[in-house]
Amino acid sequence: MNRKLRMGMVGGGKDAFIGAVHRIAANMDGLVELVCGAFSINPEIAQESGKALFIPENRIYLTYEEMMEKERLLPEDERMDFVTIVTPNFVHYAPAKLALESGFHVVIEKPMTFTLEEAKELKAIVERTGKLLCLTHTYSGYPMVKQAKAMIKDGVIGKVRKIVVEYPQGWLSRLSEREGNAQAAWRTDPKKSGKSGSMGDIGTHAAHLAEYVTGLQISELCADLSTLVEGRMLDDDGNVLLRFDNGARGVLIASQISAGEENALRIRVYGEKGGIDWAQEDPNNLILKLLDQPRQYIRTGNGYQAPYTLSSFATHNTRIPSGHPEGLLEAFGNIYRNFALTVSAKLNGETPTPEMLDFPQVDEGVRGMAFIDNVVASSEGAEKWTKFVV
Amino acid sequence: MNRKLRMGMVGGGKDAFIGAVHRIAANMDGLVELVCGAFSINPEIAQESGKALFIPENRIYLTYEEMMEKERLLPEDERMDFVTIVTPNFVHYAPAKLALESGFHVVIEKPMTFTLEEAKELKAIVERTGKLLCLTHTYSGYPMVKQAKAMIKDGVIGKVRKIVVEYPQGWLSRLSEREGNAQAAWRTDPKKSGKSGSMGDIGTHAAHLAEYVTGLQISELCADLSTLVEGRMLDDDGNVLLRFDNGARGVLIASQISAGEENALRIRVYGEKGGIDWAQEDPNNLILKLLDQPRQYIRTGNGYQAPYTLSSFATHNTRIPSGHPEGLLEAFGNIYRNFALTVSAKLNGETPTPEMLDFPQVDEGVRGMAFIDNVVASSEGAEKWTKFVV
Amino acid sequence: MNRKLRMGMVGGGKDAFIGAVHRIAANMDGLVELVCGAFSINPEIAQESGKALFIPENRIYLTYEEMMEKERLLPEDERMDFVTIVTPNFVHYAPAKLALESGFHVVIEKPMTFTLEEAKELKAIVERTGKLLCLTHTYSGYPMVKQAKAMIKDGVIGKVRKIVVEYPQGWLSRLSEREGNAQAAWRTDPKKSGKSGSMGDIGTHAAHLAEYVTGLQISELCADLSTLVEGRMLDDDGNVLLRFDNGARGVLIASQISAGEENALRIRVYGEKGGIDWAQEDPNNLILKLLDQPRQYIRTGNGYQAPYTLSSFATHNTRIPSGHPEGLLEAFGNIYRNFALTVSAKLNGETPTPEMLDFPQVDEGVRGMAFIDNVVASSEGAEKWTKFVV
Amino acid sequence: MNRKLRMGMVGGGKDAFIGAVHRIAANMDGLVELVCGAFSINPEIAQESGKALFIPENRIYLTYEEMMEKERLLPEDERMDFVTIVTPNFVHYAPAKLALESGFHVVIEKPMTFTLEEAKELKAIVERTGKLLCLTHTYSGYPMVKQAKAMIKDGVIGKVRKIVVEYPQGWLSRLSEREGNAQAAWRTDPKKSGKSGSMGDIGTHAAHLAEYVTGLQISELCADLSTLVEGRMLDDDGNVLLRFDNGARGVLIASQISAGEENALRIRVYGEKGGIDWAQEDPNNLILKLLDQPRQYIRTGNGYQAPYTLSSFATHNTRIPSGHPEGLLEAFGNIYRNFALTVSAKLNGETPTPEMLDFPQVDEGVRGMAFIDNVVASSEGAEKWTKFVV
Repeated sequence: MNRKLRMGMVGGGKDAFIGAVHRIAANMDGLVELVCGAFSINPEIAQESGKALFIPENRIYLTYEEMMEKERLLPEDERMDFVTIVTPNFVHYAPAKLALESGFHVVIEKPMTFTLEEAKELKAIVERTGKLLCLTHTYSGYPMVKQAKAMIKDGVIGKVRKIVVEYPQGWLSRLSEREGNAQAAWRTDPKKSGKSGSMGDIGTHAAHLAEYVTGLQISELCADLSTLVEGRMLDDDGNVLLRFDNGARGVLIASQISAGEENALRIRVYGEKGGIDWAQEDPNNLILKLLDQPRQYIRTGNGYQAPYTLSSFATHNTRIPSGHPEGLLEAFGNIYRNFALTVSAKLNGETPTPEMLDFPQVDEGVRGMAFIDNVVASSEGAEKWTKFVV
Repeated sequence: MNRKLRMGMVGGGKDAFIGAVHRIAANMDGLVELVCGAFSINPEIAQESGKALFIPENRIYLTYEEMMEKERLLPEDERMDFVTIVTPNFVHYAPAKLALESGFHVVIEKPMTFTLEEAKELKAIVERTGKLLCLTHTYSGYPMVKQAKAMIKDGVIGKVRKIVVEYPQGWLSRLSEREGNAQAAWRTDPKKSGKSGSMGDIGTHAAHLAEYVTGLQISELCADLSTLVEGRMLDDDGNVLLRFDNGARGVLIASQISAGEENALRIRVYGEKGGIDWAQEDPNNLILKLLDQPRQYIRTGNGYQAPYTLSSFATHNTRIPSGHPEGLLEAFGNIYRNFALTVSAKLNGETPTPEMLDFPQVDEGVRGMAFIDNVVASSEGAEKWTKFVV
Repeated sequence: MNRKLRMGMVGGGKDAFIGAVHRIAANMDGLVELVCGAFSINPEIAQESGKALFIPENRIYLTYEEMMEKERLLPEDERMDFVTIVTPNFVHYAPAKLALESGFHVVIEKPMTFTLEEAKELKAIVERTGKLLCLTHTYSGYPMVKQAKAMIKDGVIGKVRKIVVEYPQGWLSRLSEREGNAQAAWRTDPKKSGKSGSMGDIGTHAAHLAEYVTGLQISELCADLSTLVEGRMLDDDGNVLLRFDNGARGVLIASQISAGEENALRIRVYGEKGGIDWAQEDPNNLILKLLDQPRQYIRTGNGYQAPYTLSSFATHNTRIPSGHPEGLLEAFGNIYRNFALTVSAKLNGETPTPEMLDFPQVDEGVRGMAFIDNVVASSEGAEKWTKFVV
Repeated sequence: MNRKLRMGMVGGGKDAFIGAVHRIAANMDGLVELVCGAFSINPEIAQESGKALFIPENRIYLTYEEMMEKERLLPEDERMDFVTIVTPNFVHYAPAKLALESGFHVVIEKPMTFTLEEAKELKAIVERTGKLLCLTHTYSGYPMVKQAKAMIKDGVIGKVRKIVVEYPQGWLSRLSEREGNAQAAWRTDPKKSGKSGSMGDIGTHAAHLAEYVTGLQISELCADLSTLVEGRMLDDDGNVLLRFDNGARGVLIASQISAGEENALRIRVYGEKGGIDWAQEDPNNLILKLLDQPRQYIRTGNGYQAPYTLSSFATHNTRIPSGHPEGLLEAFGNIYRNFALTVSAKLNGETPTPEMLDFPQVDEGVRGMAFIDNVVASSEGAEKWTKFVV
């Protein structure tokens, strides 16, 4: 393609958080430009946000419906190519549906929808329209996560037996939703966030990471969701026993009241021949623990020689040489970059490479919503094991 | 006291592992001397072991019964003061019973007995004889574990909400019990080890650590025990959801097939105001994560000023200045030292200090055996929650 | 300002490395757009590079002289605002001089020039033209480096006594310049790189970091430069004893043959009351080691409460919440962002804040070149101490 | 041998620090028993110390001269085998000389003597008497240090090019010698400690470690010693450029005013093919950084398979399985153990193995004293390079 892709944004006004992260991720590689947006339901904030982002006035919209309608009518060489949706969970489905049906690809924050039902419908729409839906499970964008996935697929650690994935945070250790914290307010409100707090917000990331890295699927689970801060409307801590479709055992922990933790997502996978260990707060180290050998610290961006050569999926998602830390924004940028490369390839009539296609899509979004449903059902039930159904 | 305490040993011959560790721990501080032993049921090994340890021939015994009998008849200023029992689990109860009833204090490896029934009987014997029983839950001997306990007791992190305790090992990733590994052989044999492999060998350490550090007790649990190496006779992996008597939630992981892990016991406790984090493989760092403050790395042996002053329980169990790493043998030595100081104080008619008395005793042993029973019952049952009964 | 700044680029063709890094850094925050470039002295590469970057053909130039001339004549609302120079060291001065004298601000890679003489002349031109020169000493862009600087300025560790700054790399452990490594080739060629290899390429970063963080200046030094890979034309290892203008002592190590090291820049500063410790490969941790207190791990992006509140210089340069690692590209982006905010403020007739003005400028560039000269003079001399002269 | 070795002690009274460490190290393996001592020049302390150590009254001596004389006259099966000298530096030579000449082996703290002259004389006495002198350069007792030495000897990292050894401490950041700190008082007093503070106390450890691990010798140096705490009588900070006899370059840092550091001895050695990295505060990890491969973390006590098998020198000095941290006391114990095994072998007419003989002896002591002399001469001189002379 010989031009940047044009992005529109739903949500992400100047009072929001995640919208700014999406914009950095989209900007980074010079493949995407932000051309329009419906940044807020508050018209003043929408206007101010658009101006601060150098959007021409006529493309600062007050509703996403207006945006879809007007953009659809612009000439092809001007109108946006895709829409990024960064509103709270309960406003994911409607704009995504409208965007797809208006002919736009969609990038959407996780969890994909408010309910599993919506997720399944969205999947049907995606299939019907042939448009792409990209789900920003950010952590799968890290090069060392992709290296882990590649190594497990190649059998480096043998058949997987045990998975421990944990996502402790401490930011909801107080009842911040009553102290003017807007992020806390909507994320702990079942009308905006969904039926689980800890699982919707971060448990889905952990579950996705476990399935992405191992290529396995959760088949059964046993969950204990709790609300440990008095007065909160949703669970803020969850612990889940897992069983996977190959017989592997697992544990998933998602907590927002692990006081003092920041964003300590970590995954360990153990197989017959060794284990891997990756922690999001130290993302450029992938620890490989093989039986009978010293531990290996596999680090982003190295030109290791065979048999240690990094996977093409890792190197494709790395921008700078080893020893120059890449962080969350680059992982996020990888999702946008792969999505953009895929869209461009399609526009050019080319076939995207497997590396380009390696970003989370609608199927992962459906499984994420099913995960929430199954965990909540298990936690509320008296039976030990709940079959994972979609 | 103006003499060393005299120790006899049951088990710990030259072909064993843990006996040597006990001897180093006992030797370290010059408070104890090994004077006799029934080191093996194999007479040749018993003799050779005794000689290598410079034990006079007349005090190298061939059975523990002989040892108890003959030592009992020696003059008071010569006969042993206590017996250390380092045999496999199924040979704990009988020698402990005989030792106590013969007038000797006892040091014993965990798990305390083969069955919960034996544990309860041992408790009754301890109470009846007035002798001390010291259980070597080694990890509670680390100074930074004691510091964690002291800080939680002092309310530094507020009311405890969440506990994650994990003990992954990888040494049983292969069917080593069939490949001539004697340690693996008895530890995976239900006739010698008990009704659970992962829980008896290491899960009890994890459970003890959680209760020791927090001062709480497990009240309910939900367990998933698995045998992941084909052909093994006992479980080698276990994951347990926990509830504590103050309402706190928890997770306990004990695994012997986490390939590539060595001895990665770790505990994290989260309260209303912050969390603590301690890992056995890096034992001289206690990480304190308070809300709104930088993380603190509290390190063994420092002369911090108030309000950071280390607890007397930490300093009492530290031998060298900060920056000079203390390890497992010193933690083990602390248990022997406190036990020896307590015995000596009693011999001298003095009252042991709380710091001296801070070693695991028979009650902890009973809870450990109950933990195994409850976990096994839960794992075999279809109900989600099993009440922790003793 | 209500528009993005327009950037032109000298060098940075598709066969180069650092140009791409500059573009990501410039793109990231949506404040800058690349509008033109003279990307290579090879016309074909220049064209291909420009096209791949979506630059219109008429603004893909074949020489920097052509670029300056033609851009100067474009209408004000179209022509570039500043030039980024990412050529090898010996092609820094001429384009920078021409750009400044043509009315453009300049961003330039370090070391600023080929010789100290050129550096001094450039400084005179900057002063004469009133244009800004931004020097990309990337590592000073990290938030935790800025936090360290702020804390030292605030007296947190007391008067500085000792500085250890080290920059070990291993990428030149082989004679790669003879094996087709283009980066290695020019960087080890005294005609392109300058009079020192290790000091020009990385020693200047280390020296800048030491002076930036402490606010002190090197006053005397004693250097040992060596060429440890046979056949190399420039030194690849240097060790320097330092004395600072307040009497502090120091050591600076810059090495390209520390086999197995990636980019392990680290600085430790010790004062009367404590020390700070920061390592580039783990950039989101700033370790504060105060006397009599546990170590503090100060981490990027936290909302610590007083007295732990992060400096405005740290928070201004942070994009995402704690626990979401920021890396080198964000540090680099901070330099661009602050430069762009300063240029924009000036365009708008506003006064840039101290936080905006916090990027390396021409004076640092002159000191960097003087550092190289003084180190080389010391290394070649027989006297112990060489006064640092500019 | 069929008995423990009998140890006497000079110094190490209950008010001292290092004596207790020696006793733990000697006790640990059950190979040595303390039978007598001249623990203090203060008779009361001498008596109390001896009693607390359960020494019979007739073997608590008031002077070392008395001890040597009386022990010499005891029957062979009762008298001590060797003397441990743990007095301040200025009281090393005389008791060592007397002990050797009275027929006793000697264990002695570093630095070996007060002056280089004394060191050379002691060497002559050792040679003349045929007795062993063991110098407690503790850090060379760590298994992973021995592994590093073995790997370098085996050529794993190729020819050594660069050595960085550093030993920062912060405990003398204040003028503690004037505040009643007895350790600080004698160690900063040139009449008791010797002609350098930082180099005598810790620089000698660093220099020994560099030479021990690499098998190279320092051939030239350039030193900058400073007294950074006002009012102190000896230097408290030293930085040294090194050249080794094979042409390798190096840096040695020894500092007692690196505020907030505990005992952060670390050595990095870089060769043509890779580097090794070992830090005393994390002693069970040896990091191997080979070109073109992931980093390896080689950990104490593992049964790695070929080609990763640990050196016999590492395994001989390891007591417990991997994952069970060994610390400084075990490293110290290794020196005693090897010394004791060597003495026992000689008593038994056997040839000690190379592993047994692997403890620092009188030659290392002489080099240590020469190191101090050469560093002080360099620091006081105006010339850049000082040849290392013994």
